[in-house]
Amino acid sequence: MSNSFTMIGGEGPNSYREHSKFQGALVEASKEKINEAIATKLDIDITSNLINIADFGCSSGPNTFIVVQTIIDAVEHKYQKESNLEEIEFQVFFNDSPTNDFNTLFKTLPSTRRYFATGVPGSFFGRVLPRNSLHVGVSSYSLHFVSKIPKEFKDRDSPVWNKDIHCTGFSKEVAKLYLDQYKVDVWSFLNARAQELMSGGLLVLLGSCLPNGVQMSETVPGMMIDFIGSSLNEIAKQGLVDQQKLNTFKLPIYLAHTDVLKRIIEDYGCFTIEVFKKISHANGEFPLDPEYLTQSFKVTVGGSVASQFGQDAMEKTYELVKKKTQEKLPQLAQAKPGMQYLIVLRKN
Amino acid sequence: MSNSFTMIGGEGPNSYREHSKFQGALVEASKEKINEAIATKLDIDITSNLINIADFGCSSGPNTFIVVQTIIDAVEHKYQKESNLEEIEFQVFFNDSPTNDFNTLFKTLPSTRRYFATGVPGSFFGRVLPRNSLHVGVSSYSLHFVSKIPKEFKDRDSPVWNKDIHCTGFSKEVAKLYLDQYKVDVWSFLNARAQELMSGGLLVLLGSCLPNGVQMSETVPGMMIDFIGSSLNEIAKQGLVDQQKLNTFKLPIYLAHTDVLKRIIEDYGCFTIEVFKKISHANGEFPLDPEYLTQSFKVTVGGSVASQFGQDAMEKTYELVKKKTQEKLPQLAQAKPGMQYLIVLRKN
Repeated sequence: MSNSFTMIGGEGPNSYREHSKFQGALVEASKEKINEAIATKLDIDITSNLINIADFGCSSGPNTFIVVQTIIDAVEHKYQKESNLEEIEFQVFFNDSPTNDFNTLFKTLPSTRRYFATGVPGSFFGRVLPRNSLHVGVSSYSLHFVSKIPKEFKDRDSPVWNKDIHCTGFSKEVAKLYLDQYKVDVWSFLNARAQELMSGGLLVLLGSCLPNGVQMSETVPGMMIDFIGSSLNEIAKQGLVDQQKLNTFKLPIYLAHTDVLKRIIEDYGCFTIEVFKKISHANGEFPLDPEYLTQSFKVTVGGSVASQFGQDAMEKTYELVKKKTQEKLPQLAQAKPGMQYLIVLRKN
Repeated sequence: MSNSFTMIGGEGPNSYREHSKFQGALVEASKEKINEAIATKLDIDITSNLINIADFGCSSGPNTFIVVQTIIDAVEHKYQKESNLEEIEFQVFFNDSPTNDFNTLFKTLPSTRRYFATGVPGSFFGRVLPRNSLHVGVSSYSLHFVSKIPKEFKDRDSPVWNKDIHCTGFSKEVAKLYLDQYKVDVWSFLNARAQELMSGGLLVLLGSCLPNGVQMSETVPGMMIDFIGSSLNEIAKQGLVDQQKLNTFKLPIYLAHTDVLKRIIEDYGCFTIEVFKKISHANGEFPLDPEYLTQSFKVTVGGSVASQFGQDAMEKTYELVKKKTQEKLPQLAQAKPGMQYLIVLRKN
C-alpha cells in the first residue's frame, strides 16, 4: 500500500500552517549555515540568468516561504559581486503530494516575493522536475516518512506484526523492516533529485533523526505517538473504532539514527556531503505544555487518524491523548533529546 | 478596481469543469490547424531536450489537458525525425489566478501524462514565467476579459454610466471606453508573453470575438447576459439585492470585433500573425436549450453574481434567467452568429 501523508490544510486554528512553528524555528536556526554552504559550495553556471529553486514537501506554508527566501537571499549574496543581479530571475517550484492544499499555499504567497512561483504536484519519491533543471533543492521535515508500510506489520498473524502504530525502536525485527523500506525511499528521493539537479547544485535537507543509541519511544515525539496508539486502543475497546482496522493502522513515520542516515547517503553516491550538522533550537525542543503537544501531533498525525477512522473518532482519540499527556508530563520531562539536522549535499 | 474572473471550481454538476464542453469542442475543431502551425511555424532550438509549454487561464480543467496534449503531440510529431524523442522532456505550466481551484486541477491531472505538471498562480496580464523560458504558450477563452471596469460606468451620475451589466455594443461611448481598456489589457498580455516566449516560439490563442458589424447583444451570449442583467434588476425591485450596488455591477467581459482584434495585435508588434482563422464547431454554436444555456452562463458568470450579491440572490436571479430564456427562445433563434477564433502568433 502506498502512503501519502498530507498535513491538515487551510488557515484555521487547527491547520498545519498554525502549528508548524517548531519546523519554522529550525529554519531560523539554520540560516547562517545555509548561507555559508551556498556561499562556499554552490558551483553553478548562471549565464542563463535563471536560477531554479525547489522545495520538496512544501506543505501549505508558511515555513516554505521562509526557507525559500533564505536560499534566494544567500544566492543573491553570493553572486552580487560577479554578476548583474538585476538580470537574474528566480523560479521557485513548490512541490508536494497532489492532495496538498495548494490553493491555500497560492493565496498566501508573500506579496513582496521577487520570484516566479509554481506548484508541483507529485510524490517526491519520484521525478517531478525535468533533468538538469534545478540549481538548489530543499526539503524540510519530509525524510522521516516511508512510502509504504511493510505488509508483515499489518498482518495480525505474522510473527513480525507490529502492535504499535509506528516504529518504537524496541523490536529489532520491526525496526529492521522499517529501515529496509526507509533506505529504499531515501534512495528513491536522492535518485530523483540527482537527475533534477544540475552538477554543482545543492540539496539542503532539514529534519529530524535520532541520536545514535536513542530509540524513538524514548523521545517526546515517540512518546506522543505511543499515546495516540494507546488512546486509539482504548477507543477501540469502547467500540468506537474497529479493532481489526486498528491492528493494520501503522504510521509511515521512521526516524533513522544519525550514523545510519549518513551511511545511506554516502552509499547512494552522486552527492558529496558538504554539511551534516546538529541544529539546536533557540528555545530547546518541545515545550512541556499538554495543550501545545496535543495540538502539534494533531495537525501532523491527526489527518491520518481521521482518514482511517473518521473525524469523530479522531477528536475523541485526541481528548484521550491530551489527558495522557497531562498525566505523563514527568515521563515526557525525562525524554531523551532527538536530533534536528541540517544536511547539505552537492551534486557531483 | 481590479477584477479577477474565476470559474466555479470543484468537480460537481454545477462546476465549470462540467460545463466547459463548448470550449472543449473548439479545441477539437482546431486540432488539425494547431498541428499544421506547429509543424510549419515553430522554430526553436531543442538541444536542451526540454520543451516548456504554458496554458494561460487554464481554469480547473479538463479542457486545458486536451489543448496541452494536442500541442505536445504536435511538437513530438514535428521533431520525431530530427531528434531522439526519448530524450526530450516536456514541462507544462498551468497558469490561472491565485483564486483558481488548483487543488481540483492537480487531483485530476491525466494519469497517463508524459509531462511534468506545474501550477502557476498569477494574473496573465503580467509576467508569470521567467524570460525566454517558454517554447509554446496557449490561452483559451481568456482574452474576452478586461482587467478593470472604467470607473465612469459605475457612477450613476456620470454621462457615460452604463445601465447594462456589460458592453452591449449599442452605446458608442460605452463601447469606446471598454475598447480602450481592452487594448491596454491585450497589450499587457502580449507584452508579458513576448518576454516569456523565446524567439521562434508560438502563442496559440483560442476564443470568441465578434464578426465585424455584429454587436454583442445581437448574439446568444450577449442576449443571455442581458437576461442576467434584467433579472438582477427585477430582483432588485423585489428588494433582494441592493439597487445601488447593482448600478455599479459591471462584468469585465468584452468581445472585440475581428478586424479590431487583429489590428491590436499587429500594432503591438513583437509577433508575426501566422494564423487568424474562424473555427466552426461541428455542432454549431449554442444549442437552443433553456436549461443548458442557463447552466452554461451560471458556471461562467454566476460566480461574479454570487460574490457580489450572495448565493441566494444568485440562485433566484438564475431562476428568472431560465424563465426569460424559455420565453425568448424565438429571439435567441434569430441571434446573429458570433465568431470563434484560432490565432497563432510567432515571437519574432
